[in-house]
Amino acid sequence: MNEIIHPTEKTKLKRIPKRGNFERETIYKILDEAFVCHVGFVANNQPFVIPTSFARIDDRLVIHGSAASRMMRSLSEEIDVCVTVTLVDGLVLARSAFHHSMNYRSVVVFGKAKVVSEEQEKYEALKAFTEHIVPDRWAEIRPPTKNELKGTTVLSLALTEASAKIRTGNPVDDEEDYNLDVWAGVLPVHLTTGAPVADDRLKSGISVPPNILNYSRK
Amino acid sequence: MNEIIHPTEKTKLKRIPKRGNFERETIYKILDEAFVCHVGFVANNQPFVIPTSFARIDDRLVIHGSAASRMMRSLSEEIDVCVTVTLVDGLVLARSAFHHSMNYRSVVVFGKAKVVSEEQEKYEALKAFTEHIVPDRWAEIRPPTKNELKGTTVLSLALTEASAKIRTGNPVDDEEDYNLDVWAGVLPVHLTTGAPVADDRLKSGISVPPNILNYSRK
Repeated sequence: MNEIIHPTEKTKLKRIPKRGNFERETIYKILDEAFVCHVGFVANNQPFVIPTSFARIDDRLVIHGSAASRMMRSLSEEIDVCVTVTLVDGLVLARSAFHHSMNYRSVVVFGKAKVVSEEQEKYEALKAFTEHIVPDRWAEIRPPTKNELKGTTVLSLALTEASAKIRTGNPVDDEEDYNLDVWAGVLPVHLTTGAPVADDRLKSGISVPPNILNYSRK
Repeated sequence: MNEIIHPTEKTKLKRIPKRGNFERETIYKILDEAFVCHVGFVANNQPFVIPTSFARIDDRLVIHGSAASRMMRSLSEEIDVCVTVTLVDGLVLARSAFHHSMNYRSVVVFGKAKVVSEEQEKYEALKAFTEHIVPDRWAEIRPPTKNELKGTTVLSLALTEASAKIRTGNPVDDEEDYNLDVWAGVLPVHLTTGAPVADDRLKSGISVPPNILNYSRK
C-alpha cells in the first residue's frame, strides 16, 4: 500500500522539501479525515475556489453537486482542476513574531475530473459521500432513487498527481531567541463533535444510533 | 458597521440564494474565526489552490510568505485571485442519502492582491497575523527586525467583492420520509484546542500565559 506517487513540476516542493510527502497512505489518511475540500478551477478567465464535501473511493476523489451549479458545469468539461484539503493541527507559538507558524497536514491534487454517468457507479459514489461523513450510516437511511441519481452530477478525479505537505512539532526559533523570557510551544487544535441535536420532526421512539453517539473522526 | 457589500455576477448565488449573505459584519466574523484561507490563482494556465494563514485588517485581508514562493511571486503581479475561507459547523444527517448535508459558513473574496511595501504597514500586517492566531500575543514576543520584514512578502486584498454562504439548522427531508424509522438531526462540529505543549527548549520558570491557557476561538 505504501506506494509513492511520482512528484511532478507542480507537486514537488521547492522551498521546504522536507515538508513534502508523496506516500499514498499518508495522502489517503489526510483525505479521509477531512470533511471539506477546496476545488479550484477557471471560468471566464477567473479563478474560483469552492468548498465542497467529497469522498475517496480507492484511488479517486469524488465530488457531487447539482448539474446546474457553475462548478459542476465547468468541471464537466474536463478542464484543469486543483483540489486542496487542509487539516489544522496546532498553533506554533515561537519566541519571535517571524517564526510563528501552524502545524497542518494538507493535500493538493491536480488533474481533470470526469463525469460519472453509469448509474451503479453514481450509486456507489453517493454511498461513499454518506459513509465519509458518518461511517455505517448507509445501512440506516433511505438509499437514493433513480430520479435522485439523475439529478446529481458526480465527478471523479484520479489521485495520480497528488502530494501532501505536513508540518509537525515545535517552533524553530533563532538561536539567540531561545534565551528570551517568552513562553513557546504548540497549542494543539482539532475538530471535535458536540452532542447530537435531534431534528424537530424526529419520529418518537428513535434513539441516537451508536455511530453518531460515539462519533470520532480519527 | 452592518454595511452590505454589493453583489456581483461572481458573488451572487444563483441556486440557493437564501444561503447568501453580503453583510460586512457577517463576513468579517467568519474571516476572524478561521485559521486558514485557500488562495486560488492561475499560473501557466493551471489553477492552484494553496492553504495559508491570513489576517484581516479593517476592510482588507492580508497574507504573507517568502518572496521566493510560487504563490507570492504570481500574486505579486496583481493577477486575479479568489480567496476562500470555510468553517464546518455540523453534519446534517437526513433520513435519505440524498438530503445529507453540512452546516457551514464560508466566505469567498475576489480581486487582485497588492504588495505591501511600506515598512510600517508590513510591521502592522505581521502584528495582525500574530494577533489573529493568538490575541494579545504581540506584547509577549520579539517583534520583527528590519531584515525579517525585508524577507517577508505581504499581500493585501481589499474586501470589496466578497460574500458569505451559510447553511444552518435541521436536515430538510422529503415529506414522505419524515415517517421513516431513521434518526435524523445535526451532529455539531467545532474546532477546539488541547492543552498547550511547551517547547522542549523552553527556558525554565516560564508559565503558560492566560491567553494561551484559556484560549478560545470565538
